[in-house]
Amino acid sequence: MSERSFRFELLAHDERSEARRGRIHTARGPVETPAFMPVATVGAVKGVTPAELRALGAEIVLANAYHLSLRPGADTIRELGGLSSFMGWGGPVLTDSGGFQVFSLAELVRLEEDGVRFRSHLDGSLQYLTPGRVVEIEEALGVDVMMPLDDCPPFPAERRRIEEAVARTGRWLAVSKAAWQGTSALFGIVQGGVHFDLRRQSAALAVGMDLPGYAVGGLSVGEPREACYAVAAATAAELPRERPRYLMGTGTPQDLVRLVRLGYDLFDCVLPTRNARNGTLFTSAGRLNIRNARFARDPAPADPRCDCPVCRTFSRAYLRHLAVCGEMLSAVLNTVHNLRFYLKLMSDMRRALEEGGFPEYTSRLLLELSGESAETE
Amino acid sequence: MSERSFRFELLAHDERSEARRGRIHTARGPVETPAFMPVATVGAVKGVTPAELRALGAEIVLANAYHLSLRPGADTIRELGGLSSFMGWGGPVLTDSGGFQVFSLAELVRLEEDGVRFRSHLDGSLQYLTPGRVVEIEEALGVDVMMPLDDCPPFPAERRRIEEAVARTGRWLAVSKAAWQGTSALFGIVQGGVHFDLRRQSAALAVGMDLPGYAVGGLSVGEPREACYAVAAATAAELPRERPRYLMGTGTPQDLVRLVRLGYDLFDCVLPTRNARNGTLFTSAGRLNIRNARFARDPAPADPRCDCPVCRTFSRAYLRHLAVCGEMLSAVLNTVHNLRFYLKLMSDMRRALEEGGFPEYTSRLLLELSGESAETE
Repeated sequence: MSERSFRFELLAHDERSEARRGRIHTARGPVETPAFMPVATVGAVKGVTPAELRALGAEIVLANAYHLSLRPGADTIRELGGLSSFMGWGGPVLTDSGGFQVFSLAELVRLEEDGVRFRSHLDGSLQYLTPGRVVEIEEALGVDVMMPLDDCPPFPAERRRIEEAVARTGRWLAVSKAAWQGTSALFGIVQGGVHFDLRRQSAALAVGMDLPGYAVGGLSVGEPREACYAVAAATAAELPRERPRYLMGTGTPQDLVRLVRLGYDLFDCVLPTRNARNGTLFTSAGRLNIRNARFARDPAPADPRCDCPVCRTFSRAYLRHLAVCGEMLSAVLNTVHNLRFYLKLMSDMRRALEEGGFPEYTSRLLLELSGESAETE
Repeated sequence: MSERSFRFELLAHDERSEARRGRIHTARGPVETPAFMPVATVGAVKGVTPAELRALGAEIVLANAYHLSLRPGADTIRELGGLSSFMGWGGPVLTDSGGFQVFSLAELVRLEEDGVRFRSHLDGSLQYLTPGRVVEIEEALGVDVMMPLDDCPPFPAERRRIEEAVARTGRWLAVSKAAWQGTSALFGIVQGGVHFDLRRQSAALAVGMDLPGYAVGGLSVGEPREACYAVAAATAAELPRERPRYLMGTGTPQDLVRLVRLGYDLFDCVLPTRNARNGTLFTSAGRLNIRNARFARDPAPADPRCDCPVCRTFSRAYLRHLAVCGEMLSAVLNTVHNLRFYLKLMSDMRRALEEGGFPEYTSRLLLELSGESAETE
């Protein structure tokens, strides 16, 4: 499980966009990129087993170091063989630091030079997270890729606050790198809001530390879609071609297509899993709200073009019935379908990158996915 | 899906108890008995897919006609190919009438000669259920075995009330039989509380109608365990040997062992699924509450003797973590394990009945299962 096992291989490049087809080698197996990482915050994708995840095409999952450090504790997980083994997955795992959760969800007590004081979302207890402590937790978890603690201000924020975040993120990255024992691959994080100059500055700080990969944070936090794409494009251009690029916490299927075009390789998002629990299904013709009364007697599968076990077995009428009854199986089946939709979207894009015709393929895809407004209630 | 497809075959008989090994033939396949039916009230076992159920060894599931008639409606299900197909199961299905739910859970408005008036548990709307309407619903659902509407008084009840229930259950059974089109196998129900004479009288009424099978209701409703077994034994003796005997709504693993010994063939109970959601796991050494702090670093599977996918993959420490976090996967995994425990218990008893040594096998089983008190918090 050494960082030395980590290697990024570029396999193909689209000629008319920045999109690339790659492979991340880890001690726990390869990850074909562009890749989507299902979210397993506390070490479990909600309602889905590791065996199902693998069958759906997942090759890497994302967990949250801060959440796991509170419960069940990093030492417990280390004793039990590390996170991947503990959760019965066995494949590659990436952990977010939990900084985003602290900045956006927790009761923030004080942002300091060396770390952040806040109250635990579980019991209100006072917590202190530093970049060094986060690295220590993630190495105890024995993950394959770890994200450092960064300063991720909420949107919107004053330019001065974002300047401060860029500087602090850079300083904390240096502290993280110094604390790093090399058991996991440490990625650098780029902040800078929607300011091109600050993004450039933050990218330079991160790239200067010569790390195994780079992540772009602080996007998809409420800024206009076009600003997000423009900043993502400009930031990607500042990152080395030969290292994986991870766009954190994004997004819709359309976002993934656009961001792959811009040269990003890794993605995570709660949309497929969280929306599943609300009855929103992603399909090749756009979203549908399975609770809608018009599905009450609809014998068709959720997405006739989907190859997932849910679409092969159940009708929209049955899925609607489960959703309306609030049955647990509703969340399970919807999650399985949505994850398959996301994972197949990625594998379809990978194939188009290998075989050529990626621009045409993704243009058609964006058109089909925009059926969204027509299909939504 | 005709009642004519329904046939019960007796394969073996224990020489030192009333236990029997049988096979129910249905149009949707055989059910090896003694059999446990997982509960799928609204057409879904909570958190478990039909493919998983089959892999766990389930051959028949139980649903609730009343619940399904309210939502999504019997006509909708008929249009969509019947309940078994609608729920993606394809195998045999037995429906309870829902009478038990009406008598025990709903706001009972009035018990009449011809039916029962009550308020829907969903929206408080006034409902009227008659034996004829129940048969109509169940035949629309296209199930393999259907239970008639019976009068199931709560425990404790006055003897006079139980006498009335026996008479009404008999009258309603005659109405059910008259309404029956023959698309599903109609079982008779025996009531009578803990009164041996009333049980005998109720059994005579049911058996007099010469039905494909007989069920014993109104047990495991709060009466002392020994009274339940004594009444179950006496009632079984009143039922024809060559028809399947279904003891409704029971019970613990120990109950199942004892009731199989008394000559019962079919069982259903919410214990394995409901307890799973509360963190109680059934194991070969008794129950354990997986939330208990002593499992926090326990690398052993829930039950080292269990062959289920949960015990083959996850530690008690991980299962405890999921339970403590309230993760949906906790309910899913615990349910899979508990159902496998129940279904394997039945298949182990079936094998002992085939191969001989059933009395010794079940005596050892009861001893092991009584580890319960030691393992429970």
